[in-house]
Amino acid sequence: MTVATAPSAPPLTAATLAALRAAVGDEHVLTDEAGLAAYSRCTIPWYARCGAVVLPGSTEEVARVVRIANEAGLPVWPFSGGRNWGYGGTLATEPGAIVLLLRRMNRIVQVDDTLAYAVIEPGVSYRQLSEHLRQGGHRLWPDCIDGTPDGSVIGNALDRGIGETPYGDHFGNLCGLEVVLPNGDVVTTGGGGAEVRTFHLHKWGVGPYVEGLFSQSNLGIVTRAGVWLMPEPECFNSFVFELRDDRSFEQVVDAFRTLALQGVLTSKLHMINDIVSMTVVTQRVREGVTHDRAMTEDERRAIRRKYGIAAWNCAGGLYGSASSVAGQRRALRRALGRYGRLVFVSDRLAGTLEAMLPLAWRHAPVRWLVELGARTSLTVINSFPHVHRILKGIPTDYFLKHAYFRNRRERPDADVDPARDRCGLLWFAPILPNVGSEVRAYADACRVRFERAGFDFYVAMLMMNPRSVICLMNVNFDHDAAAEAERARALYAELMDDMRARGYAQYRSALPGWPPATEGEVAAQRLLGRVKRALDPRGVLAPGRYGVDGRG
Amino acid sequence: MTVATAPSAPPLTAATLAALRAAVGDEHVLTDEAGLAAYSRCTIPWYARCGAVVLPGSTEEVARVVRIANEAGLPVWPFSGGRNWGYGGTLATEPGAIVLLLRRMNRIVQVDDTLAYAVIEPGVSYRQLSEHLRQGGHRLWPDCIDGTPDGSVIGNALDRGIGETPYGDHFGNLCGLEVVLPNGDVVTTGGGGAEVRTFHLHKWGVGPYVEGLFSQSNLGIVTRAGVWLMPEPECFNSFVFELRDDRSFEQVVDAFRTLALQGVLTSKLHMINDIVSMTVVTQRVREGVTHDRAMTEDERRAIRRKYGIAAWNCAGGLYGSASSVAGQRRALRRALGRYGRLVFVSDRLAGTLEAMLPLAWRHAPVRWLVELGARTSLTVINSFPHVHRILKGIPTDYFLKHAYFRNRRERPDADVDPARDRCGLLWFAPILPNVGSEVRAYADACRVRFERAGFDFYVAMLMMNPRSVICLMNVNFDHDAAAEAERARALYAELMDDMRARGYAQYRSALPGWPPATEGEVAAQRLLGRVKRALDPRGVLAPGRYGVDGRG
Repeated sequence: MTVATAPSAPPLTAATLAALRAAVGDEHVLTDEAGLAAYSRCTIPWYARCGAVVLPGSTEEVARVVRIANEAGLPVWPFSGGRNWGYGGTLATEPGAIVLLLRRMNRIVQVDDTLAYAVIEPGVSYRQLSEHLRQGGHRLWPDCIDGTPDGSVIGNALDRGIGETPYGDHFGNLCGLEVVLPNGDVVTTGGGGAEVRTFHLHKWGVGPYVEGLFSQSNLGIVTRAGVWLMPEPECFNSFVFELRDDRSFEQVVDAFRTLALQGVLTSKLHMINDIVSMTVVTQRVREGVTHDRAMTEDERRAIRRKYGIAAWNCAGGLYGSASSVAGQRRALRRALGRYGRLVFVSDRLAGTLEAMLPLAWRHAPVRWLVELGARTSLTVINSFPHVHRILKGIPTDYFLKHAYFRNRRERPDADVDPARDRCGLLWFAPILPNVGSEVRAYADACRVRFERAGFDFYVAMLMMNPRSVICLMNVNFDHDAAAEAERARALYAELMDDMRARGYAQYRSALPGWPPATEGEVAAQRLLGRVKRALDPRGVLAPGRYGVDGRG
Repeated sequence: MTVATAPSAPPLTAATLAALRAAVGDEHVLTDEAGLAAYSRCTIPWYARCGAVVLPGSTEEVARVVRIANEAGLPVWPFSGGRNWGYGGTLATEPGAIVLLLRRMNRIVQVDDTLAYAVIEPGVSYRQLSEHLRQGGHRLWPDCIDGTPDGSVIGNALDRGIGETPYGDHFGNLCGLEVVLPNGDVVTTGGGGAEVRTFHLHKWGVGPYVEGLFSQSNLGIVTRAGVWLMPEPECFNSFVFELRDDRSFEQVVDAFRTLALQGVLTSKLHMINDIVSMTVVTQRVREGVTHDRAMTEDERRAIRRKYGIAAWNCAGGLYGSASSVAGQRRALRRALGRYGRLVFVSDRLAGTLEAMLPLAWRHAPVRWLVELGARTSLTVINSFPHVHRILKGIPTDYFLKHAYFRNRRERPDADVDPARDRCGLLWFAPILPNVGSEVRAYADACRVRFERAGFDFYVAMLMMNPRSVICLMNVNFDHDAAAEAERARALYAELMDDMRARGYAQYRSALPGWPPATEGEVAAQRLLGRVKRALDPRGVLAPGRYGVDGRG
């Protein structure tokens, strides 16, 4: 296991610990072995033993903790939910740091039905927001991720994660923040304070727009935010597009770009390759693949055939009036029909499928009929209702099981927790111009590196916007196999170098991908270093996160 | 005339002047009487005599000027085009400051047809970009304003101006900036430098998003930017909606909000009241109204009747496939049909109108037929082709003539220049929740203040996004009438106080509306003050712009 290379934090003194306990309550400061261990590991091949885990219950408590850290010169690493698996979870870079976890701050402060937004705290999860809206009879859809339903809505948005629907640019749909600065000051963005009536309605506010400073950064701790929600559309269809022949990949990327630029496709298209599909439906160990190399072409072909997995699977949503959705379906058919199978799923069809699936799994003749009707395998059909729900803002942990693909132990059916279960999961997420030939060339080159390093090439293309696409790769390994973890780390470093050489950057980065503060574009780093020093002169807030470091 | 209250800048020494001339070339430093006068005035009731006007030709020259200013401790006020009439134009707050005008930097560096964007310098105007794209055969539409075609695309976007089409959030469609910092450093945003291939494609980049710091601010000078462009849609219609009865105003606002939240209306809806319509088609002096009070109800009614002007006129665009545009038309008719007349204008109808209009103006029977066919007055019809062109990104100075409404001199037919022609024009631009009853209540209250102060109540509602609407008011006065200018200033101060008391803020502010650095939400002001000091320790870059001041 690779340990952190940053210098250790100063030791946590008894006085500081007492102050922390007084600030948030004894029971909300963890220093026991199990507590520390749980928050010192992630699914990435990296480890840093934290000094304490502090769980504040309010903005004022967050401010108190920050002030204590300033006095003690002790680094504090804030995390909204801390379930950012594959990117770093609750890991700090330096051993001994305080992990500040905002899970207890999970109030849904306000929901506005007319103007379609909510005001929430960082501990609010996708599941919680989604259930709150449905149970309250609000006809508003949140945008969720296809990862854990327990993920933090604000945390993901601040890390600039991407979702599913037209509201899938999570940071872009955040509006109006309350922030604890590194010195303990509490500020509200927007230029006029929280009492301004458009605080959560007009993203830019008045004066310099500062909210961006608090995303992918260590310049403040967001303790409350407005989140725009999608009014339930008159009509909604999800679609799944199976690309049968990998040779059409470039044309399909270009076709989707055109549809997005034309405003026909407004959801965040996800395109996953065959390996991704496999990781959702099975595990290597279940298929008898237990070696520590990349699967052979024969092994992959066998699994593809067994489950009816296509070269690429694409999914997205269509939203609007019934006639508008019908128009979008026609446009998709015209653009994509020749390249593969396009299935549209209405609420009604999703319901029918959910009712039929248990029967079909049990009775071969039913299965045969369903597969014939849908012209694809039951395994693929099985995912439709999950895809459908996610595209209307209802999270599921169905896809999260992919993290267990390489584990030698059987994955759980429920209570999925990749960090606890020793899944090796390391995201590598460069963003590329949304042009088929360029995406193809890059993915092909990465595939070679993955396989040479002994890893299956897992890649999902997520359309960030019509002009750029995230080429999201996952180095999936077994955390119990030390050699695999070490190779994963080496592959990541190699991918980073190659990415930079090609002129790409990540849209979001795991901890080992953060640039050293002295690297990169020098003037821009200097700019951020100056801002960091101005706001955090003692350098206590997550020093080095995303390369921002007042020492740079 | 009210003069600036900020302390004068230190005198411009011969040595500094010589350094500036050496930096940009003798002919690009103006110190002659006419030059200084032209850039020391605006249409707002405010005046500050600048010390010199410097017109750099490159990023390196901008950096040189900034370094000279730092050495001399002399304030520099950068302006992209300097045609921000009604907000402050090229005015600095302190007499003696250097006006840094980027007009000479007007290169269109790149146009990408596949990914639909351009890279431009701050001197590039709407007219220039629009003509460049059309002449080059690019099937890409810029978003323009309904103000001057000579306005700077970058300047407007940095001031967070709003346009017309789905790309009308100008700052939101800016991506990838080159910036000269107050110390002369040149940085590129995005976290990876200009060589990153998604520099102009992915707005947030990697690491803290800093571009927002350079909008409505004095933290840097943007010398190059990527601008996203709209691919020419398969089908385009503009629409004009005439609301005949002011009593339906609230329902119409709510209907438009619903259409926008549903994604049916994607353009930036503009709703103008009767006074705005009048200012476009005539002048008070032409109608025999020369007094310095607000027009009486009788005077207004007479002008409305003469020109066939409705209580409110709304305009927007519909973009997409032919069937999608047809669907949008149906949705608009369903939502708005009961409240007034809805006219859809296709390219073909716009062409026919342009061909017919000269005839109709000359021949009464043709006029009668056209008015009958369109069921509205020829004056209103006259604006359709202009509205239509603007909504496809082709700027016109047709609407800019409104600035002359109160001038006692006849307005020019061409070469419109409100600042030169002594137009009094002061924008007041609060942003409100997009809710009919709230917008109505606020507008009604402002109307009383306008009329009591002797001004016609000019108000346009511009939908910033589905959730917020700009209530754009214009204090229109005659700059040759000193008493009017003074009353305009007093009204503005009164409107500011009232706005704050009601919990609103401006979306964009004229110079006299900038908050003093010591005012407003204290912690947020302190945050910006700290950033300002970190980046601009000598406080040379437009100190106090938008209330940002390192001294605060």
